[in-house]
Amino acid sequence: MAPVSELIAKDLALLEQSIEQLLTTKVAFIREVVHHIIKSGGKRIRPVLVILSAKMCGAQDHKHIPYAAIIEFIHTATLLHDDVVDNAKIRRGRLTANTIWGNEPSVLVGDFLFTKSFDLMVQIENSEVLKVMSAATTSLAEGEIMELLKTSDLNTSEAEYFEVIANKTAVLIAAACEMGAILGNADAQRRNALRQFGHHLGMAFQLKDDFLDYVSTDSTLGKNVGIDLKEGKVTLPLIHTLRHSTPEEREIITTAFEKPKTTKRDFQKVKKIIEKYGGLAYTENVSKQHVDSAKEFLALFSPSPYRDALRDLATYIITRET
Amino acid sequence: MAPVSELIAKDLALLEQSIEQLLTTKVAFIREVVHHIIKSGGKRIRPVLVILSAKMCGAQDHKHIPYAAIIEFIHTATLLHDDVVDNAKIRRGRLTANTIWGNEPSVLVGDFLFTKSFDLMVQIENSEVLKVMSAATTSLAEGEIMELLKTSDLNTSEAEYFEVIANKTAVLIAAACEMGAILGNADAQRRNALRQFGHHLGMAFQLKDDFLDYVSTDSTLGKNVGIDLKEGKVTLPLIHTLRHSTPEEREIITTAFEKPKTTKRDFQKVKKIIEKYGGLAYTENVSKQHVDSAKEFLALFSPSPYRDALRDLATYIITRET
Repeated sequence: MAPVSELIAKDLALLEQSIEQLLTTKVAFIREVVHHIIKSGGKRIRPVLVILSAKMCGAQDHKHIPYAAIIEFIHTATLLHDDVVDNAKIRRGRLTANTIWGNEPSVLVGDFLFTKSFDLMVQIENSEVLKVMSAATTSLAEGEIMELLKTSDLNTSEAEYFEVIANKTAVLIAAACEMGAILGNADAQRRNALRQFGHHLGMAFQLKDDFLDYVSTDSTLGKNVGIDLKEGKVTLPLIHTLRHSTPEEREIITTAFEKPKTTKRDFQKVKKIIEKYGGLAYTENVSKQHVDSAKEFLALFSPSPYRDALRDLATYIITRET
Repeated sequence: MAPVSELIAKDLALLEQSIEQLLTTKVAFIREVVHHIIKSGGKRIRPVLVILSAKMCGAQDHKHIPYAAIIEFIHTATLLHDDVVDNAKIRRGRLTANTIWGNEPSVLVGDFLFTKSFDLMVQIENSEVLKVMSAATTSLAEGEIMELLKTSDLNTSEAEYFEVIANKTAVLIAAACEMGAILGNADAQRRNALRQFGHHLGMAFQLKDDFLDYVSTDSTLGKNVGIDLKEGKVTLPLIHTLRHSTPEEREIITTAFEKPKTTKRDFQKVKKIIEKYGGLAYTENVSKQHVDSAKEFLALFSPSPYRDALRDLATYIITRET
């Protein structure tokens, strides 16, 4: 993402300032918890998408900066709650907030970030953006619950999996792009195209995440590999595999899922079956298809460094190793 | 609250309908969890305040009904998260959602209710109400965190305690009243008076709650008595007592707080010291003072059955036994 960072270096600097400035609260401890997670080297993908989308649509001012900060707050809120729900110990190579301070502050500081984000948006008074963001965060909450309900359900269908990731991941990324379009005063057609771009990018992003969970190494990923299996998350590599596996292989997978503590050995066994049926290649391919679809929606826009950057970002989504 | 219920019987029926109608979601399970808590006989104090305030200010339509439903959603979201944070087993005489389904759904369904509430308000597009509500929910989240940080802190001052309860309880009740004023097209002076009324009512309400936690019985209260002590919540009866108690008595209280499992006997010991120094009478008196202050703010309004009902509600706050 280096060329992208250079292209919007000023906006990214303003973003970090804005994150600091907007994070006002009566309770100093809140800043401590938020800093721990928001300053831990996240990729800022959603803010970058807001910035690039706005600029590609012709935004000349910096009205998009606070929104870029706010979408990172919302994302951070979901990470805090996700880590509680998943009982995660490590994120981005660091201990999670719930590990350091316990579940209670993670739940409540996440709530603060949600409500603060709305409060900030309400103060700015752009009702179009507000509609997009409030609908997106509601879908996001629904997506998280859909995922929870599908935990350890080896009968999860591909369609159900796609619905989960569309809601829990793609909707907010689509909202980031659509928000940029609104702030860049794009017409309805371009606004819609950017939302679609974001949707496909988000799908590709989550698919790649679920792929990496099986193939990366702990140190590259900055979190534990094989965590989806441990947490009972039935993702596409496995769903594809279960369609083809023998009853004996399904039995091995079931056993690994039902164990209270999945070992490295269980993970390797399951991974071997997945590899046998090409579950990882299949997932990577679906991810690639979404990136291709995403890129098609950029054709509507005149060539510009920002359009190129969005295209590069889409490529990065599928080539990244973390 | 029987006469109040008769006075606004139609609005209360519409409220229950609205709660059902607005609770739309892609995930059926969400309704199940929300129903469990929202249909468990809560007092609907916040919705009633929205309705009475709007009607006292002259509202002739039913624009306030969806907002009355939404404020109950927000309150329900906080209950779901509170019960996770406090590890509570019983609420309103029933098992808590976290006891039945675990912490994860409680966290995520709470998130859904927060985001859905904003989504609904954004759709209605009353920016004044939106500002009041987004500021209030942010303060509420801050209040919950302030309270968490003061857990088991026997040096908590009266001022700190008041700040906690102002944020965690009074702000939302004040917002309910202010929202009613806005929807009843009240002028700035009356709107401010209703907010102040709500603030004092909210303070009185929480003080009475903290009083009841020491004096009620399990079956009357619908939840366990002495829970504040168990959860390390340092409330006014205790703060007052600690100002007067001997080193030996303070030691008894400290021991009860530091125990991983507080027994009925510990509770009785602490209660005895509190009674010795009049901690309960003191708390009840402060609660009563807030109710008196609240009532004064009603003087600005012309006599009406709604004004009488708000006055009765204020009296009910301090006379109630649950």
